[in-house]
Amino acid sequence: MNDQQPVQLRVGLAQVDTAVGDLAGNADLVRTWTAKAAGDGVHLVVFPEMTLTGYPAEDLVLRESFAHASEHALVDLATQLADDGLGEVAVVVGYLAHTEGSGPAPVDQPPTDDDRPGDANPRRGAPRNAAALLYGGEVVARYYKRHLPNYGVFDEARYFVPGTDLPIVRLHGVDIALTVCEDLWVERGPCGVAGQVGVDVVCSPNASPYERAKDDLRLPLVRRRAAESKAPILYCNQIGGQDELVFDGDSLVVSADGELLARAPQFVEHLLTVDLSFAPTPADRTQGRVGGLLVTRRLISDEPVPPFEPRPSTIVKPLSDHEEVWRALVLGLRDFIDKNGMPSVVLGLSGGIDSALVAALAVDALGPDRVYGVGLPSKWSSEHSLSDAEDSAKRLGLHYSVVPIAPMVEAYEKSVELTGVAGENLQARVRGTLLMGLSNQHGHLLLATSNKSEVAVGYSTLYGDAAGGFAPIKDVPKTLVWELARWRNDEARRRGETEPIPQNSIDKPPSAELAPGQQDSDSLPSYEELDAVIADYVDRDLGLAQLLERGHDAAVVAKVLRLVDMAEFKRRQSAPGTKISLKAFGRDRRLPITNRWRETPPTVREGAAT
Amino acid sequence: MNDQQPVQLRVGLAQVDTAVGDLAGNADLVRTWTAKAAGDGVHLVVFPEMTLTGYPAEDLVLRESFAHASEHALVDLATQLADDGLGEVAVVVGYLAHTEGSGPAPVDQPPTDDDRPGDANPRRGAPRNAAALLYGGEVVARYYKRHLPNYGVFDEARYFVPGTDLPIVRLHGVDIALTVCEDLWVERGPCGVAGQVGVDVVCSPNASPYERAKDDLRLPLVRRRAAESKAPILYCNQIGGQDELVFDGDSLVVSADGELLARAPQFVEHLLTVDLSFAPTPADRTQGRVGGLLVTRRLISDEPVPPFEPRPSTIVKPLSDHEEVWRALVLGLRDFIDKNGMPSVVLGLSGGIDSALVAALAVDALGPDRVYGVGLPSKWSSEHSLSDAEDSAKRLGLHYSVVPIAPMVEAYEKSVELTGVAGENLQARVRGTLLMGLSNQHGHLLLATSNKSEVAVGYSTLYGDAAGGFAPIKDVPKTLVWELARWRNDEARRRGETEPIPQNSIDKPPSAELAPGQQDSDSLPSYEELDAVIADYVDRDLGLAQLLERGHDAAVVAKVLRLVDMAEFKRRQSAPGTKISLKAFGRDRRLPITNRWRETPPTVREGAAT
Repeated sequence: MNDQQPVQLRVGLAQVDTAVGDLAGNADLVRTWTAKAAGDGVHLVVFPEMTLTGYPAEDLVLRESFAHASEHALVDLATQLADDGLGEVAVVVGYLAHTEGSGPAPVDQPPTDDDRPGDANPRRGAPRNAAALLYGGEVVARYYKRHLPNYGVFDEARYFVPGTDLPIVRLHGVDIALTVCEDLWVERGPCGVAGQVGVDVVCSPNASPYERAKDDLRLPLVRRRAAESKAPILYCNQIGGQDELVFDGDSLVVSADGELLARAPQFVEHLLTVDLSFAPTPADRTQGRVGGLLVTRRLISDEPVPPFEPRPSTIVKPLSDHEEVWRALVLGLRDFIDKNGMPSVVLGLSGGIDSALVAALAVDALGPDRVYGVGLPSKWSSEHSLSDAEDSAKRLGLHYSVVPIAPMVEAYEKSVELTGVAGENLQARVRGTLLMGLSNQHGHLLLATSNKSEVAVGYSTLYGDAAGGFAPIKDVPKTLVWELARWRNDEARRRGETEPIPQNSIDKPPSAELAPGQQDSDSLPSYEELDAVIADYVDRDLGLAQLLERGHDAAVVAKVLRLVDMAEFKRRQSAPGTKISLKAFGRDRRLPITNRWRETPPTVREGAAT
Repeated sequence: MNDQQPVQLRVGLAQVDTAVGDLAGNADLVRTWTAKAAGDGVHLVVFPEMTLTGYPAEDLVLRESFAHASEHALVDLATQLADDGLGEVAVVVGYLAHTEGSGPAPVDQPPTDDDRPGDANPRRGAPRNAAALLYGGEVVARYYKRHLPNYGVFDEARYFVPGTDLPIVRLHGVDIALTVCEDLWVERGPCGVAGQVGVDVVCSPNASPYERAKDDLRLPLVRRRAAESKAPILYCNQIGGQDELVFDGDSLVVSADGELLARAPQFVEHLLTVDLSFAPTPADRTQGRVGGLLVTRRLISDEPVPPFEPRPSTIVKPLSDHEEVWRALVLGLRDFIDKNGMPSVVLGLSGGIDSALVAALAVDALGPDRVYGVGLPSKWSSEHSLSDAEDSAKRLGLHYSVVPIAPMVEAYEKSVELTGVAGENLQARVRGTLLMGLSNQHGHLLLATSNKSEVAVGYSTLYGDAAGGFAPIKDVPKTLVWELARWRNDEARRRGETEPIPQNSIDKPPSAELAPGQQDSDSLPSYEELDAVIADYVDRDLGLAQLLERGHDAAVVAKVLRLVDMAEFKRRQSAPGTKISLKAFGRDRRLPITNRWRETPPTVREGAAT
């Protein structure tokens, strides 16, 4: 090795869209993208967190047969890559690791000599959130995630045993350290140890969900860890929808001195490549126990790759706020429908802004041919309702039909007395029943059109407009619904296309049209006020005193808090029932809805009543 | 103090039924039961875990205004007890503790010098699952739960910071140690430390949910800890229903040498008293850091209570399996209805065993006057359906009416084509819509009658028979439904009462009656086979190979696993939607349904459409 000559490496970050439970499909994705990377001259390619199992696999992690299958899939993948002629590419891939019988004992655990309590979680085996480096047909190193997030949408203390080792692999004279996701959020964690013992590059597979207005937390964070590691960080984040989560990619590479070297686009599968060069280092750097971790080193090769001409790399600019949200919603919807194998969707078109927006999202996600809109006018529907619904259908080019609900409503009203709110809800439930009938008859998934403001205060009908297999704008406050509609129409104009959303649906005052002349403002504060209180009470968890301090109107606050608290039941539409067994279908069995893990041979959906 | 004279103490365990969020109501409960205890000559009374807030308070714990209110309620309670003339009774009460700004930093936390990773949970403050000892109008000691369960139905790593201290209070010459729940499940935890430094009695407030066929885990566990502590353990467990959980009480006291001194009945509020006597000990026993805990001692009084004649204490025998399940279901249902302030329930009576059993449970829980049954015959209903439903209503003395569904079904069929499964589901949804209409019109809560076998395989109609605000037998497999019906009728005969469940409903073959001559056995394996596979696949999480090893039929296993996997969506009836904000209504906002915490003044339920 020539001490004067820098050591080079072309690295790739493959931000792919995995499917939870689909071990074979996810392994194929790794093979496909590794082949792409090899074709592009990449020496080291990093995939997202838990690539093979998908993320989050929730309680699937606790099923031993699944964990064993993940372990086998990893070893098989190493072989397959070599068989594909890709053995010379180093591949960092996430998986679920499992060690037979090595977990904590169910009860009565070993003594604790420090000031931290032990872990009495009776999980079987020792499931770990792991990343492996595959090379030459073999699993060369296994890293176990050390810092397990257990807040917000994360429950990793429920699933995983934390790792205690930091394996470093020396390949082509470059020392490569492995970490996983949350390890990057902690000061003096694995990155700090890497910086102490000396590494050349840190791989960081991630599954970091998209969140609006999160600001750009990732770049400054990765910069701090790069400084701590004294090495560039390869931050690869997955893309795609998984039930309620959507991942945006946004993978990036930051140099040891904090320079952003490359950044991938959001919401699309992408291979981000960067050419790195390093000053040569000795092969005998520090090993052993450092900062609570056991550092091990494995030498694969000390010989640098042949010198090559570095290429410039891409730094994609982040999307605007509205485009970012739009694409998050489109991808979340598309992946829910496609990963669950649904051919098409159906939704009620009321002429209002919510259903018009959901229809536009559905067409952007699936194309007009997979979207079925139904107008369901009642005797209280205004004239513009049906014409706006038709206009929406026409602009989008989706399938459209009309079913007036009066005959059904009258049949109920002749059988039982239903007045006031009960009569209003009846109309919504007749619509829900009709739409679910069409869903069952034709195999469409029903989309619910409720927005976050309605969901928060319970301004919707259970089994009526709240019915559906997916609710694309459930987390979109009403004020943002309008903003997105305007943005999408602007975007269409900019592209010279037809505006997908009728201007009248945007402009008219919102109404449920369940009683004569009814408007949302009869029952609710203005949406500006409502959404502001929801943001502070729901998203920020502020209390009454803090809400008033922040200048919200006292009467509005009192009303909204009451409604939000009372609506908790409605938000959990699945009727709870008393648990008496080891695992009830409820809070203690937390499986992903979108889940391709099957122990039995695949088959068409069976005829259980749906 | 006479060294020859034993030191005595009368202790009480008050297994009460708290309500989540109801700080004032729960404090009143403590005052009422402390007065009872004082009247009974008790010197030390132990209440269940998190008495003041109720358990589990889920994400309410993260709301700072709630945590502050809990801290204030604790201090107020100490004063109120003294004002009530109860200051001389030592009261151990659970609460939510909160220390302003003392929690872990949101990101970039302090270094870890041992081999356990730090905790990057960005919770505000430092919420703790705490127990306090109140005496003489003051909070004398505060203990913070050290071992935080985070498996099954528990998520305490999400909510709490673990404690690091073991406070011991010397009262009347007796050294009293505090622990909380899970601390008892860990060897060489706080009980081990208590045994090392010397205590006379260990208080253990608990919130341990009922689970069928759990065997008797509690007694041997408490015995092991009593031996480790070298002191009697006062194990007080709450009773009552909280959403899907039901707590059974079963409080007990075990002596240092493992003798069961007293045991409380299950599923009822109860004060269990025991007279203890101890050899006198010096006041200057070990303090300081021991086994990872900081042991502190506080002397209140060294003077023993005046000698008294010990009374024998009660050891209640545990209930039989069927009676235990029955009472769990009754209490779970009653508390859900009453804690949510519902006046009455409505349910469809089909003449089948499931609705007959739910009706009997509802009448046992609420009395016949709060239960409304509705017969909803269709053209496919057999004659016995309506007569069995009427028989059920008559035996139970509940309100009963009949609404034939044909007119509504025909109105839909004239408007849209709904055949096969879509036509079957239509009938179930017309029933659901009628029942929800009656619910809205009269304020009843709708009870769903689905059992665990149906829920598991998705053999039910979304928004049809699956509709409802509570599903009392959602965790009861069909084979157990029959056993419970027979047991309840036997019980009635034993008491010389009318059998509440028609024998014909028990004996006839199960049918959904949604198509001519339809029987459950057309679509499903026998319920014996089905329930056996569900127990192994769902409750025990076994994989395919293990299921076959255990002798299940391969074809049945293949079919059941497919159905269970496919039905995951249906079990989560609340339509998921893509999360884009800090807190979506979904997996990252986990609030109890039954929750009395209100920041605003109480009011009647508002007219948000339900």
